[in-house]
Parts: sequence; structure tokens; C-alpha cells
Amino acid sequence: MMDPTALESSKESARDAALSAAPGWQWSERPPSLFRRFQFGSYGQTRQFLDRLAEQSDALGVQPQNINFGTTYVNVTISASGPNLSESECRLAAELGRLATA
Amino acid sequence: MMDPTALESSKESARDAALSAAPGWQWSERPPSLFRRFQFGSYGQTRQFLDRLAEQSDALGVQPQNINFGTTYVNVTISASGPNLSESECRLAAELGRLATA
Repeated sequence: MMDPTALESSKESARDAALSAAPGWQWSERPPSLFRRFQFGSYGQTRQFLDRLAEQSDALGVQPQNINFGTTYVNVTISASGPNLSESECRLAAELGRLATA
Repeated sequence: MMDPTALESSKESARDAALSAAPGWQWSERPPSLFRRFQFGSYGQTRQFLDRLAEQSDALGVQPQNINFGTTYVNVTISASGPNLSESECRLAAELGRLATA
């Protein structure tokens, strides 16, 4: 069994890896997840973002755990399907961040 | 000013009108809203429903207040943009109910 200090530092490094791959997201544990709220100026922009999100999600084979949206916002939660966030899961987060600021 | 009994019965008739137009939905007040959870067998079906929802929403000019979805469910909240749910808002609810059972 890992000693508590090693376990703690393994958690921290999982978080650090996720956040450096996907800056601007919030990380949480149990399960390891990335969360971000995207705000838009119009319903048209919101819908465009949702369409791109669906494309990226298909391209990377990652289904976000939860999407919550209204007229001018989209809240995205990407949770680890395995013990930690995979490279594809972090990449989806990074791509969405890029889309929103593009 | 309306007397409390008249106000109460006006609220009830707004609710009854909404629920008879859109059976299977839950009604709530402040603001008058319809809520329904749709459950699907696969992510593909969920995505198909979301695409249809976007089409119907455009066709009727109604933007749902909130959509919350995961891999196999979609929670839809349609709130009154005016003092009561409009005919189009109730119709969107009715169409979504039809789509989900089709």
C-alpha cells in the first residue's frame, strides 16, 4: 500500500498534469474531473460552441460526463472514465478552451 | 387587485392548460415552467434527440431555459418568457414528448 504522503503527491501530480494540459479549468477529485463555465454573447454563439463540442467529442472519442446549458452559457464537466483523466479527456478540455477564445 | 381565490384559480388554469398541451411534463411556478427528464439507451440516441430539439426550438422560436445532459439523459426546462407559458413554449414541450416516444 502507498504511504499517505506518496498518495497525496500522486493526487497532486494528477491534478497538475490535468491543469497544465487544460488551463482555465477547475479540477476536482472523486472522480477526477475538469469543470468549466463558458459564457457567450448570444444564443447563436452558444449553439455554435455546442456543435463544435459535439464534433471534438466525436473526434477524440470522449463523452463529457455532463453538459448544462442555457441561452448564453455552457457548463462542461469532463470526468475520468478510468482512475485518472486520460490524455484524450484533457485534450478535449484544451480544445474547448481554445474554441471558446477563438 | 384580484382576490386570492381568483388568483389561485387563474394559476391552476395556467398549469392545467400547460399540462394538457404537454402531457408527461412537470409544471412549476415562479416562473411558470415545464420540466421533463428524457432517458435514452445510448449516446447516439441522446445526440439525435438533442439535434431534433435544436431544430424544433429554431422552428418554434423558443429557447429552452436550461438543458442538462449526459451520456444517456436529457433534462429540459422550458420557462415562460412572459407572465405565462406561451402556445409556442407548450408546443415545443409537446413536440419533444412526441420525438422521445417516436
